[in-house]
Amino acid sequence: MYQTVKYGTLKELQLNKMIEPFIHPSAEIREGCEIGEGTVIGPFVRLEANVKIGKWCTIGPFSVIAEDTIIADDVFIGPFFGTTNDKKPHIGPHGLHPDKPKFDAMPPRIYRGAVIGERVTLAPGVTIGEGARIDMCAQIYSSVLAGKHIRAGVQHKV
Amino acid sequence: MYQTVKYGTLKELQLNKMIEPFIHPSAEIREGCEIGEGTVIGPFVRLEANVKIGKWCTIGPFSVIAEDTIIADDVFIGPFFGTTNDKKPHIGPHGLHPDKPKFDAMPPRIYRGAVIGERVTLAPGVTIGEGARIDMCAQIYSSVLAGKHIRAGVQHKV
Amino acid sequence: MYQTVKYGTLKELQLNKMIEPFIHPSAEIREGCEIGEGTVIGPFVRLEANVKIGKWCTIGPFSVIAEDTIIADDVFIGPFFGTTNDKKPHIGPHGLHPDKPKFDAMPPRIYRGAVIGERVTLAPGVTIGEGARIDMCAQIYSSVLAGKHIRAGVQHKV
Repeated sequence: MYQTVKYGTLKELQLNKMIEPFIHPSAEIREGCEIGEGTVIGPFVRLEANVKIGKWCTIGPFSVIAEDTIIADDVFIGPFFGTTNDKKPHIGPHGLHPDKPKFDAMPPRIYRGAVIGERVTLAPGVTIGEGARIDMCAQIYSSVLAGKHIRAGVQHKV
Repeated sequence: MYQTVKYGTLKELQLNKMIEPFIHPSAEIREGCEIGEGTVIGPFVRLEANVKIGKWCTIGPFSVIAEDTIIADDVFIGPFFGTTNDKKPHIGPHGLHPDKPKFDAMPPRIYRGAVIGERVTLAPGVTIGEGARIDMCAQIYSSVLAGKHIRAGVQHKV
Repeated sequence: MYQTVKYGTLKELQLNKMIEPFIHPSAEIREGCEIGEGTVIGPFVRLEANVKIGKWCTIGPFSVIAEDTIIADDVFIGPFFGTTNDKKPHIGPHGLHPDKPKFDAMPPRIYRGAVIGERVTLAPGVTIGEGARIDMCAQIYSSVLAGKHIRAGVQHKV
Protein backbone atom coordinates (compact mmCIF):
# COMPACT_ATOMS: atom_id res chain seq x y z
CA MET A 1 0.00 0.00 0.00
CA TYR A 2 2.86 2.39 0.73
CA GLN A 3 6.21 2.84 -0.90
CA THR A 4 9.42 2.79 1.03
CA VAL A 5 10.84 6.23 1.68
CA LYS A 6 13.39 7.58 -0.81
CA TYR A 7 15.14 10.89 -0.17
CA GLY A 8 15.74 13.55 -2.80
CA THR A 9 15.10 17.17 -3.63
CA LEU A 10 11.93 18.13 -5.44
CA LYS A 11 13.95 19.05 -8.54
CA GLU A 12 15.79 15.75 -8.58
CA LEU A 13 12.52 13.94 -8.27
CA GLN A 14 10.86 15.94 -11.06
CA LEU A 15 13.80 15.57 -13.46
CA ASN A 16 13.48 11.85 -13.10
CA LYS A 17 9.74 12.18 -13.64
CA MET A 18 9.35 10.27 -10.45
CA ILE A 19 6.54 10.80 -8.04
CA GLU A 20 8.33 9.56 -5.01
CA PRO A 21 7.47 11.28 -1.77
CA PHE A 22 9.43 14.49 -1.20
CA ILE A 23 10.99 14.61 2.23
CA HIS A 24 12.69 17.81 3.32
CA PRO A 25 16.29 17.08 4.37
CA SER A 26 15.70 18.63 7.80
CA ALA A 27 12.87 16.20 8.63
CA GLU A 28 13.58 13.51 11.22
CA ILE A 29 11.99 10.15 10.45
CA ARG A 30 12.25 7.14 12.74
CA GLU A 31 12.41 3.47 11.80
CA GLY A 32 9.49 1.66 10.22
CA CYS A 33 7.76 4.65 8.59
CA GLU A 34 6.13 4.31 5.17
CA ILE A 35 5.17 7.25 2.93
CA GLY A 36 3.13 7.13 -0.27
CA GLU A 37 3.94 8.60 -3.69
CA GLY A 38 3.59 12.33 -4.21
CA THR A 39 3.44 13.10 -0.52
CA VAL A 40 5.39 16.13 0.75
CA ILE A 41 6.98 16.05 4.22
CA GLY A 42 7.94 19.63 5.13
CA PRO A 43 10.96 20.99 7.00
CA PHE A 44 11.42 20.20 10.71
CA VAL A 45 8.84 17.42 10.72
CA ARG A 46 9.24 14.58 13.22
CA LEU A 47 7.71 11.22 12.39
CA GLU A 48 7.93 8.79 15.31
CA ALA A 49 8.36 5.05 14.67
CA ASN A 50 6.03 3.11 12.35
CA VAL A 51 3.98 6.03 11.06
CA LYS A 52 2.11 5.20 7.83
CA ILE A 53 1.18 8.06 5.46
CA GLY A 54 -0.72 7.58 2.19
CA LYS A 55 -0.40 9.21 -1.26
CA TRP A 56 -0.64 12.89 -2.23
CA CYS A 57 -0.56 14.24 1.29
CA THR A 58 1.12 17.35 2.69
CA ILE A 59 2.60 17.33 6.20
CA GLY A 60 3.38 20.93 7.20
CA PRO A 61 6.57 22.14 8.89
CA PHE A 62 7.07 21.62 12.64
CA SER A 63 4.61 18.72 12.85
CA VAL A 64 5.10 15.81 15.21
CA ILE A 65 3.33 12.56 14.35
CA ALA A 66 3.09 10.05 17.20
CA GLU A 67 4.22 6.43 16.93
CA ASP A 68 1.93 4.09 14.92
CA THR A 69 -0.26 6.93 13.56
CA ILE A 70 -2.01 6.08 10.28
CA ILE A 71 -2.82 8.85 7.77
CA ALA A 72 -4.73 7.94 4.57
CA ASP A 73 -4.44 9.47 1.05
CA ASP A 74 -5.11 13.11 0.05
CA VAL A 75 -4.73 14.52 3.56
CA PHE A 76 -3.55 18.12 4.11
CA ILE A 77 -1.90 19.00 7.42
CA GLY A 78 -0.70 22.53 8.22
CA PRO A 79 2.30 23.65 10.28
CA PHE A 80 2.73 22.80 14.00
CA PHE A 81 0.38 19.81 13.91
CA GLY A 82 0.60 17.95 17.21
CA THR A 83 -0.46 14.40 17.95
CA THR A 84 -0.30 12.55 21.27
CA ASN A 85 -0.69 8.90 22.22
CA ASP A 86 -0.26 8.69 26.00
CA LYS A 87 -3.33 9.49 28.06
CA LYS A 88 -1.63 9.43 31.46
CA PRO A 89 2.09 10.19 31.49
CA HIS A 90 2.95 9.05 35.01
CA ILE A 91 4.63 10.92 37.83
CA GLY A 92 8.12 9.51 38.41
CA PRO A 93 11.26 8.78 36.44
CA HIS A 94 11.16 9.25 32.66
CA GLY A 95 13.90 9.46 30.07
CA LEU A 96 16.26 6.46 30.16
CA HIS A 97 15.37 5.28 33.68
CA PRO A 98 15.07 1.46 33.87
CA ASP A 99 11.87 1.72 35.95
CA LYS A 100 10.14 3.97 33.44
CA PRO A 101 6.82 2.18 32.85
CA LYS A 102 5.48 1.20 29.45
CA PHE A 103 2.12 2.59 28.37
CA ASP A 104 -0.69 1.51 26.08
CA ALA A 105 -0.17 3.78 23.09
CA MET A 106 -3.33 5.30 21.61
CA PRO A 107 -2.21 6.70 18.25
CA PRO A 108 -4.64 8.85 16.25
CA ARG A 109 -5.98 7.82 12.84
CA ILE A 110 -6.75 10.27 10.01
CA TYR A 111 -9.00 9.25 7.12
CA ARG A 112 -8.91 10.15 3.43
CA GLY A 113 -9.16 13.77 2.31
CA ALA A 114 -9.14 15.37 5.77
CA VAL A 115 -7.90 18.99 5.85
CA ILE A 116 -6.23 20.13 9.07
CA GLY A 117 -5.18 23.77 9.55
CA GLU A 118 -2.26 25.29 11.39
CA ARG A 119 -1.44 24.39 15.02
CA VAL A 120 -4.17 21.80 15.53
CA THR A 121 -3.67 19.38 18.44
CA LEU A 122 -5.14 15.87 18.74
CA ALA A 123 -5.69 14.17 22.09
CA PRO A 124 -4.72 10.48 22.34
CA GLY A 125 -6.82 7.95 20.45
CA VAL A 126 -9.04 10.27 18.39
CA THR A 127 -9.89 9.64 14.74
CA ILE A 128 -10.48 12.31 12.09
CA GLY A 129 -13.15 11.13 9.65
CA GLU A 130 -13.05 11.19 5.84
CA GLY A 131 -13.19 14.69 4.38
CA ALA A 132 -13.40 16.38 7.78
CA ARG A 133 -12.11 19.95 7.95
CA ILE A 134 -10.43 21.32 11.06
CA ASP A 135 -9.53 25.00 11.20
CA MET A 136 -6.45 26.55 12.81
CA CYS A 137 -5.71 26.25 16.53
CA ALA A 138 -8.52 23.77 17.25
CA GLN A 139 -7.97 21.32 20.10
CA ILE A 140 -9.52 17.94 19.34
CA TYR A 141 -10.40 15.94 22.45
CA SER A 142 -12.78 13.45 20.81
CA SER A 143 -13.18 11.90 17.38
CA VAL A 144 -14.46 14.00 14.49
CA LEU A 145 -17.08 12.44 12.18
CA ALA A 146 -16.61 12.23 8.39
CA GLY A 147 -17.35 15.51 6.62
CA LYS A 148 -17.64 17.54 9.81
CA HIS A 149 -16.21 21.09 10.02
CA ILE A 150 -14.55 22.18 13.28
CA ARG A 151 -14.12 25.95 13.53
CA ALA A 152 -10.87 27.74 14.40
CA GLY A 153 -9.80 27.77 18.04
CA VAL A 154 -12.62 25.46 19.19
CA GLN A 155 -12.05 22.92 21.96
CA HIS A 156 -13.89 19.97 20.38
CA LYS A 157 -15.11 17.63 23.14
CA VAL A 158 -18.37 16.26 21.65
CA MET B 1 15.10 48.73 1.13
CA TYR B 2 16.40 45.33 2.20
CA GLN B 3 19.79 43.75 1.92
CA THR B 4 20.31 40.41 0.33
CA VAL B 5 20.84 37.64 2.83
CA LYS B 6 24.41 36.82 3.83
CA TYR B 7 25.09 33.89 6.09
CA GLY B 8 27.55 33.92 8.96
CA THR B 9 27.89 33.35 12.68
CA LEU B 10 27.32 36.21 15.06
CA LYS B 11 31.01 36.20 15.99
CA GLU B 12 32.12 36.36 12.38
CA LEU B 13 29.78 39.23 11.81
CA GLN B 14 30.97 41.14 14.87
CA LEU B 15 34.67 40.62 14.12
CA ASN B 16 34.08 42.23 10.77
CA LYS B 17 32.14 44.99 12.50
CA MET B 18 29.39 44.24 10.09
CA ILE B 19 25.78 44.54 10.94
CA GLU B 20 24.58 41.99 8.50
CA PRO B 21 21.57 40.00 9.56
CA PHE B 22 22.39 37.04 11.80
CA ILE B 23 20.79 33.86 10.59
CA HIS B 24 21.04 30.76 12.76
CA PRO B 25 22.57 27.89 10.77
CA SER B 26 19.58 25.65 11.49
CA ALA B 27 17.12 28.11 9.90
CA GLU B 28 15.62 27.12 6.53
CA ILE B 29 15.19 30.00 4.10
CA ARG B 30 13.63 29.64 0.68
CA GLU B 31 14.45 31.52 -2.51
CA GLY B 32 13.77 35.22 -2.90
CA CYS B 33 13.88 36.24 0.78
CA GLU B 34 15.42 39.56 1.82
CA ILE B 35 16.50 40.40 5.38
CA GLY B 36 17.63 43.80 6.69
CA GLU B 37 20.75 44.68 8.68
CA GLY B 38 20.93 43.76 12.34
CA THR B 39 18.00 41.37 12.17
CA VAL B 40 18.29 38.06 14.03
CA ILE B 41 16.68 34.92 12.62
CA GLY B 42 16.58 32.30 15.41
CA PRO B 43 17.11 28.53 15.27
CA PHE B 44 14.59 26.33 13.47
CA VAL B 45 12.92 29.22 11.67
CA ARG B 46 11.28 28.56 8.31
CA LEU B 47 10.94 31.44 5.86
CA GLU B 48 8.87 30.49 2.82
CA ALA B 49 9.64 32.05 -0.59
CA ASN B 50 9.91 35.82 -1.09
CA VAL B 51 9.54 36.89 2.53
CA LYS B 52 10.80 40.44 3.17
CA ILE B 53 12.00 41.39 6.68
CA GLY B 54 13.26 44.86 7.63
CA LYS B 55 16.08 46.05 9.92
CA TRP B 56 16.67 45.33 13.64
CA CYS B 57 14.03 42.65 13.95
CA THR B 58 14.04 39.43 15.94
CA ILE B 59 12.32 36.32 14.60
CA GLY B 60 12.06 33.77 17.43
CA PRO B 61 12.82 30.04 17.16
CA PHE B 62 10.30 27.68 15.57
CA SER B 63 8.55 30.40 13.58
CA VAL B 64 7.08 29.80 10.15
CA ILE B 65 6.60 32.83 7.90
CA ALA B 66 4.29 32.29 4.94
CA GLU B 67 5.24 33.07 1.32
CA ASP B 68 5.29 36.79 0.38
CA THR B 69 4.89 38.02 3.98
CA ILE B 70 6.28 41.53 4.57
CA ILE B 71 7.65 42.51 7.99
CA ALA B 72 8.86 46.09 8.54
CA ASP B 73 11.71 47.39 10.76
CA ASP B 74 12.04 47.03 14.57
CA VAL B 75 9.60 44.13 14.86
CA PHE B 76 9.93 41.58 17.67
CA ILE B 77 8.47 38.12 17.16
CA GLY B 78 8.64 35.41 19.85
CA PRO B 79 8.98 31.63 19.46
CA PHE B 80 6.44 29.45 17.61
CA PHE B 81 5.00 32.32 15.55
CA GLY B 82 2.65 30.94 12.94
CA THR B 83 1.39 32.63 9.81
CA THR B 84 -1.03 31.27 7.21
CA ASN B 85 -1.99 32.40 3.72
CA ASP B 86 -4.57 29.93 2.42
CA LYS B 87 -8.14 30.53 3.54
CA LYS B 88 -9.63 27.35 2.12
CA PRO B 89 -7.25 24.43 1.69
CA HIS B 90 -9.44 22.13 -0.40
CA ILE B 91 -10.42 18.52 0.11
CA GLY B 92 -8.58 16.27 -2.34
CA PRO B 93 -5.05 15.57 -3.47
CA HIS B 94 -2.24 17.73 -2.09
CA GLY B 95 1.51 17.26 -2.07
CA LEU B 96 2.94 16.76 -5.55
CA HIS B 97 -0.31 15.72 -7.25
CA PRO B 98 -0.68 17.34 -10.74
CA ASP B 99 -4.33 18.20 -10.02
CA LYS B 100 -3.50 20.06 -6.80
CA PRO B 101 -5.25 23.40 -7.31
CA LYS B 102 -3.53 26.77 -7.04
CA PHE B 103 -4.85 29.24 -4.50
CA ASP B 104 -4.89 33.02 -4.08
CA ALA B 105 -2.27 33.54 -1.39
CA MET B 106 -3.21 36.03 1.33
CA PRO B 107 0.07 36.70 3.14
CA PRO B 108 0.02 38.76 6.35
CA ARG B 109 1.75 42.11 6.69
CA ILE B 110 3.39 43.38 9.89
CA TYR B 111 4.13 47.08 10.36
CA ARG B 112 7.01 48.85 12.11
CA GLY B 113 7.69 48.26 15.80
CA ALA B 114 5.06 45.58 16.38
CA VAL B 115 5.78 43.25 19.31
CA ILE B 116 4.41 39.72 19.05
CA GLY B 117 4.71 37.28 21.98
CA GLU B 118 5.18 33.53 22.04
CA ARG B 119 2.97 31.16 20.05
CA VAL B 120 0.82 33.78 18.33
CA THR B 121 -1.07 32.64 15.21
CA LEU B 122 -2.24 34.87 12.34
CA ALA B 123 -5.14 33.93 10.08
CA PRO B 124 -4.68 34.54 6.32
CA GLY B 125 -4.58 38.13 5.11
CA VAL B 126 -4.48 40.01 8.43
CA THR B 127 -2.25 43.02 9.03
CA ILE B 128 -0.61 43.96 12.33
CA GLY B 129 -0.45 47.75 12.68
CA GLU B 130 2.50 49.93 13.68
CA GLY B 131 3.51 49.52 17.31
CA ALA B 132 0.78 46.97 18.06
CA ARG B 133 1.46 44.58 20.92
CA ILE B 134 0.17 41.01 20.89
CA ASP B 135 0.63 38.87 23.98
CA MET B 136 1.39 35.16 24.06
CA CYS B 137 -0.97 32.53 22.63
CA ALA B 138 -3.32 35.05 20.99
CA GLN B 139 -5.13 33.92 17.85
CA ILE B 140 -5.53 36.79 15.37
CA TYR B 141 -8.47 36.32 13.00
CA SER B 142 -8.74 39.95 11.84
CA SER B 143 -6.39 42.88 11.40
CA VAL B 144 -5.02 44.69 14.45
CA LEU B 145 -4.94 48.50 14.38
CA ALA B 146 -1.75 50.50 15.02
CA GLY B 147 -0.89 50.78 18.71
CA LYS B 148 -3.52 48.30 19.85
CA HIS B 149 -2.78 45.79 22.64
CA ILE B 150 -4.19 42.26 22.33
CA ARG B 151 -4.13 40.33 25.60
CA ALA B 152 -2.71 36.84 26.07
CA GLY B 153 -4.78 33.92 24.85
CA VAL B 154 -7.45 36.11 23.25
CA GLN B 155 -9.20 35.06 20.04
CA HIS B 156 -9.17 38.43 18.26
CA LYS B 157 -12.05 38.58 15.78
CA VAL B 158 -12.97 42.30 15.89
CA MET C 1 24.20 18.17 40.95
CA TYR C 2 24.25 17.93 37.15
CA GLN C 3 26.63 16.25 34.78
CA THR C 4 28.21 18.05 31.91
CA VAL C 5 26.57 17.31 28.61
CA LYS C 6 28.00 14.44 26.54
CA TYR C 7 26.64 13.76 23.07
CA GLY C 8 25.95 10.30 21.67
CA THR C 9 23.24 8.14 20.17
CA LEU C 10 21.02 6.09 22.44
CA LYS C 11 22.58 2.89 21.13
CA GLU C 12 26.12 4.09 21.75
CA LEU C 13 25.14 5.06 25.25
CA GLN C 14 23.49 1.70 25.97
CA LEU C 15 26.35 -0.35 24.56
CA ASN C 16 28.65 1.40 26.98
CA LYS C 17 26.11 0.80 29.74
CA MET C 18 26.31 4.48 30.40
CA ILE C 19 23.42 6.51 31.61
CA GLU C 20 24.60 9.77 30.19
CA PRO C 21 21.88 12.09 29.01
CA PHE C 22 20.73 11.35 25.48
CA ILE C 23 20.63 14.45 23.33
CA HIS C 24 19.18 14.19 19.84
CA PRO C 25 21.70 15.42 17.26
CA SER C 26 19.23 17.98 15.90
CA ALA C 27 18.84 19.69 19.30
CA GLU C 28 20.43 23.12 19.69
CA ILE C 29 21.99 23.74 23.09
CA ARG C 30 23.60 27.01 24.10
CA GLU C 31 26.54 27.59 26.40
CA GLY C 32 26.39 26.84 30.12
CA CYS C 33 23.65 24.19 30.07
CA GLU C 34 23.83 21.19 32.41
CA ILE C 35 21.80 18.00 31.94
CA GLY C 36 21.50 15.10 34.41
CA GLU C 37 22.00 11.39 33.78
CA GLY C 38 19.32 9.45 31.96
CA THR C 39 17.59 12.55 30.66
CA VAL C 40 16.38 12.52 27.06
CA ILE C 41 16.42 15.73 25.00
CA GLY C 42 14.26 15.15 21.90
CA PRO C 43 14.73 16.35 18.31
CA PHE C 44 14.48 20.05 17.48
CA VAL C 45 14.76 21.16 21.09
CA ARG C 46 16.27 24.58 21.83
CA LEU C 47 17.90 25.14 25.22
CA GLU C 48 18.89 28.77 25.74
CA ALA C 49 21.98 29.64 27.81
CA ASN C 50 22.50 28.28 31.33
CA VAL C 51 19.49 25.96 31.50
CA LYS C 52 19.80 23.31 34.24
CA ILE C 53 17.89 20.02 33.85
CA GLY C 54 17.96 17.20 36.44
CA LYS C 55 18.03 13.40 36.11
CA TRP C 56 15.57 11.07 34.32
CA CYS C 57 13.65 13.79 32.56
CA THR C 58 12.15 13.85 29.07
CA ILE C 59 12.10 17.07 27.07
CA GLY C 60 9.79 16.58 24.07
CA PRO C 61 10.52 17.65 20.49
CA PHE C 62 10.10 21.31 19.45
CA SER C 63 10.47 22.65 22.98
CA VAL C 64 12.15 25.96 23.75
CA ILE C 65 13.53 26.44 27.25
CA ALA C 66 14.31 30.03 28.20
CA GLU C 67 17.66 31.20 29.56
CA ASP C 68 18.40 30.28 33.21
CA THR C 69 15.39 27.93 33.54
CA ILE C 70 15.81 25.24 36.22
CA ILE C 71 14.08 21.87 35.83
CA ALA C 72 14.42 19.28 38.65
CA ASP C 73 14.56 15.44 38.42
CA ASP C 74 11.87 13.10 37.02
CA VAL C 75 10.09 15.79 34.99
CA PHE C 76 8.19 14.88 31.82
CA ILE C 77 7.65 17.57 29.19
CA GLY C 78 5.73 16.90 25.97
CA PRO C 79 6.27 18.37 22.48
CA PHE C 80 6.05 22.11 21.69
CA PHE C 81 6.66 23.22 25.29
CA GLY C 82 7.14 26.96 25.39
CA THR C 83 8.72 29.06 28.12
CA THR C 84 9.14 32.82 28.24
CA ASN C 85 11.16 35.13 30.46
CA ASP C 86 10.50 38.68 29.29
CA LYS C 87 7.34 40.30 30.61
CA LYS C 88 7.48 43.42 28.46
CA PRO C 89 9.36 43.14 25.19
CA HIS C 90 9.65 46.82 24.28
CA ILE C 91 8.59 48.67 21.15
CA GLY C 92 11.69 49.70 19.18
CA PRO C 93 14.83 48.14 17.74
CA HIS C 94 15.57 44.50 18.53
CA GLY C 95 17.97 42.03 16.95
CA LEU C 96 21.56 43.26 16.94
CA HIS C 97 20.77 46.97 17.41
CA PRO C 98 23.20 48.66 19.87
CA ASP C 99 20.32 50.45 21.62
CA LYS C 100 18.37 47.25 22.25
CA PRO C 101 17.63 47.46 25.98
CA LYS C 102 18.45 44.72 28.49
CA PHE C 103 15.63 43.23 30.49
CA ASP C 104 15.23 41.56 33.88
CA ALA C 105 14.87 37.91 32.91
CA MET C 106 12.16 35.99 34.78
CA PRO C 107 12.90 32.35 33.96
CA PRO C 108 10.42 29.67 35.05
CA ARG C 109 11.27 26.92 37.55
CA ILE C 110 9.87 23.39 37.41
CA TYR C 111 9.97 21.14 40.47
CA ARG C 112 10.49 17.38 40.81
CA GLY C 113 8.13 14.95 39.12
CA ALA C 114 5.99 17.51 37.28
CA VAL C 115 4.24 16.16 34.17
CA ILE C 116 3.57 18.66 31.38
CA GLY C 117 1.55 17.66 28.30
CA GLU C 118 1.84 18.76 24.70
CA ARG C 119 1.94 22.42 23.67
CA VAL C 120 1.84 23.94 27.15
CA THR C 121 3.01 27.57 27.47
CA LEU C 122 4.42 29.22 30.59
CA ALA C 123 4.28 32.97 31.18
CA PRO C 124 7.42 34.65 32.56
CA GLY C 125 8.38 33.89 36.16
CA VAL C 126 5.92 31.11 37.01
CA THR C 127 6.88 28.01 38.97
CA ILE C 128 5.41 24.53 38.50
CA GLY C 129 5.23 22.73 41.85
CA GLU C 130 6.37 19.20 42.73
CA GLY C 131 4.25 16.51 41.11
CA ALA C 132 1.94 18.99 39.39
CA ARG C 133 0.22 17.71 36.24
CA ILE C 134 -0.58 20.04 33.35
CA ASP C 135 -2.62 18.71 30.44
CA MET C 136 -2.17 19.58 26.77
CA CYS C 137 -2.58 23.12 25.41
CA ALA C 138 -2.87 24.76 28.86
CA GLN C 139 -1.65 28.35 29.16
CA ILE C 140 -0.03 28.97 32.56
CA TYR C 141 -0.13 32.65 33.61
CA SER C 142 0.54 32.11 37.32
CA SER C 143 2.38 29.56 39.44
CA VAL C 144 0.94 26.08 39.92
CA LEU C 145 1.02 24.57 43.43
CA ALA C 146 2.57 21.17 44.17
CA GLY C 147 0.32 18.26 43.23
CA LYS C 148 -2.22 20.41 41.41
CA HIS C 149 -3.85 19.20 38.16
CA ILE C 150 -4.50 21.77 35.42
CA ARG C 151 -6.95 20.52 32.78
CA ALA C 152 -6.35 20.60 29.03
CA GLY C 153 -6.75 23.92 27.25
CA VAL C 154 -7.28 25.90 30.47
CA GLN C 155 -5.96 29.45 30.84
CA HIS C 156 -4.60 29.17 34.40
CA LYS C 157 -4.58 32.61 36.02
CA VAL C 158 -5.22 31.68 39.70
